[in-house]
Amino acid sequence: MTQNLQNQQILLSKRPEGMPTEENFEFKNTAVLAPENGQVLVRTIYLSVDPYMRGRMSDAKSYAEPYKLNEMISGGIIGEVVQSRSDQLSVGDKVIGMLGWQHYNVIEASGVRKVDDTIAPLSSYLSVLGMTGLTAYFGLLDIGNPQEGETVVVSGAAGAVGMIVGQIAKIKGARVVGIAGSDNKTAFLEKELGFDKAVNYKTAGNINDSLKQACPNGVDVYFDNVGGEISDAVMSLLNDFARIPLCGAISSYNRTDGDIGPRIQPNLIKSRSLIKGFIIGDYSDRFDEGIQTLAKWVSEGSLKYEENIVEGFENVPQAFLGLFKGENLGKQLVKVNDEITNQE
Amino acid sequence: MTQNLQNQQILLSKRPEGMPTEENFEFKNTAVLAPENGQVLVRTIYLSVDPYMRGRMSDAKSYAEPYKLNEMISGGIIGEVVQSRSDQLSVGDKVIGMLGWQHYNVIEASGVRKVDDTIAPLSSYLSVLGMTGLTAYFGLLDIGNPQEGETVVVSGAAGAVGMIVGQIAKIKGARVVGIAGSDNKTAFLEKELGFDKAVNYKTAGNINDSLKQACPNGVDVYFDNVGGEISDAVMSLLNDFARIPLCGAISSYNRTDGDIGPRIQPNLIKSRSLIKGFIIGDYSDRFDEGIQTLAKWVSEGSLKYEENIVEGFENVPQAFLGLFKGENLGKQLVKVNDEITNQE
Repeated sequence: MTQNLQNQQILLSKRPEGMPTEENFEFKNTAVLAPENGQVLVRTIYLSVDPYMRGRMSDAKSYAEPYKLNEMISGGIIGEVVQSRSDQLSVGDKVIGMLGWQHYNVIEASGVRKVDDTIAPLSSYLSVLGMTGLTAYFGLLDIGNPQEGETVVVSGAAGAVGMIVGQIAKIKGARVVGIAGSDNKTAFLEKELGFDKAVNYKTAGNINDSLKQACPNGVDVYFDNVGGEISDAVMSLLNDFARIPLCGAISSYNRTDGDIGPRIQPNLIKSRSLIKGFIIGDYSDRFDEGIQTLAKWVSEGSLKYEENIVEGFENVPQAFLGLFKGENLGKQLVKVNDEITNQE
Repeated sequence: MTQNLQNQQILLSKRPEGMPTEENFEFKNTAVLAPENGQVLVRTIYLSVDPYMRGRMSDAKSYAEPYKLNEMISGGIIGEVVQSRSDQLSVGDKVIGMLGWQHYNVIEASGVRKVDDTIAPLSSYLSVLGMTGLTAYFGLLDIGNPQEGETVVVSGAAGAVGMIVGQIAKIKGARVVGIAGSDNKTAFLEKELGFDKAVNYKTAGNINDSLKQACPNGVDVYFDNVGGEISDAVMSLLNDFARIPLCGAISSYNRTDGDIGPRIQPNLIKSRSLIKGFIIGDYSDRFDEGIQTLAKWVSEGSLKYEENIVEGFENVPQAFLGLFKGENLGKQLVKVNDEITNQE
């Protein structure tokens, strides 16, 4: 079958300086490889684009290895097994893994994990039941530890992680304030997801004043996805013993002029606050717990999720670039191919 | 007896803007009050001056209440009971407490704690066995949690807290790098206290390069007493899962121009580091444990301490102001009066 298939990959053709553009990506036609013993051939269905990938496009040391220049970009992908030379996976199985940005990946069977699309939609394994949901779950609960009646602020609140953070905080009985960048988003957070208050930082005028008004009792937990001036404003409102899970700093990822701002140490001492960076891989031994709890909340209706799915492999770069333009509401995915069921 | 005694107090006569000066203090002669039922009259022997007091001289909200304008300043004092109307304390007892900056304090017996000068020198209860030692002990061990072979960096290393931090880190088997502001201090840290390396930030040229050289394996724990550019430099050297007890930010206490610097969040995310502000009062239920352990290390010879004692109540303002000029090596105390033994 492989001889009839065309493969296409997306390479990192140029490291971005500042904001990435389509020029950083190159499409390349290749042959589809045949799986060897123990391997499977996986056809991509859903492909996840995430802000952390911006870090891997630079060659600076970070927690994840930089993408190699002129080689394929990789990330979270859900696909379907179309050929199997492993007894662990069968043709038709849906699997998830860190795979290359291409239509067809050849991979060891042990390099992917089977997902059950009869109990949850396939795409949800890349959003609420995937790294996105788990990032919200562990960052908020393990580091933030919100208590009933406390005030939880989340930045990037209409993004994939942010909207799950806010809803989990509500489940835990906290008062939740979200910060987002459009009236559509703030309306969605308040009306659809039950946030107590959402602040549009672009139209708020003085963000310090708006936040202060939105948080009359101060801030006990700040789940930070964005960094920059928004976080500066939150830092002045910390209550004693506040906790700050540091998930991302999207405002700084594309800066080339240095990221300068008020030093936060004096505020942290005064309030005796804790701030901690984390990545979801740090919690890998507790993923099962996280997924089960998230799935339960989804099935009970207390946790809603939102996916923004664009169609077509050719649109992957645009979908990625959109992350930095504040375009996405919820988790950004690309549907690369339809599912084939029961194919031999 | 009280009718023969003269009292003198030090008031906060003006709130400082920027660096405090002698103009912020006023000496006032007053009568010595007589203790009432349950109270004692305490004659000041040692008076502690500490950087945190700068915060209380401003009227901004912080963890400690601001000193009131034109009222007496207060702080840690060791004194001798010279009159007692309580059966809990006798004349001649040595006591410690948060008392007013004056020669004679009248205080409820329950407002001070008796100290035993037969097992440790009186002054040590304001230094290594007092808030200073406890701050080093709990900040380093509870938040920093240094492990054998890890690299611990401490700023303000020749200060009261810093030199104890470094020695405790050595006791725990860490490699210790201190940052201080003179060659005398760095020599003292390396030769007298056994620091593995001490960096003079004033003569280091590029502090980033010097620190990098001093920490070839990166930084696992950074005990921060100073903030500012020194801390900026350390932040770029954090290893994965580094811990940063935030004890002080003396570099910013007297700034009037805002305290601006590189945002630290991106480094904290990359390294998944934890940073936490604390004050020693947060550990009050564990003071006994801390004092016993510190006393044991002192008696074993594994923990040395250094006190810089000036004589005379009239020198209290200068001793305080010296804290911000990098003058002190170790704990700064003022000897206000000699001990009187067995006075009736």
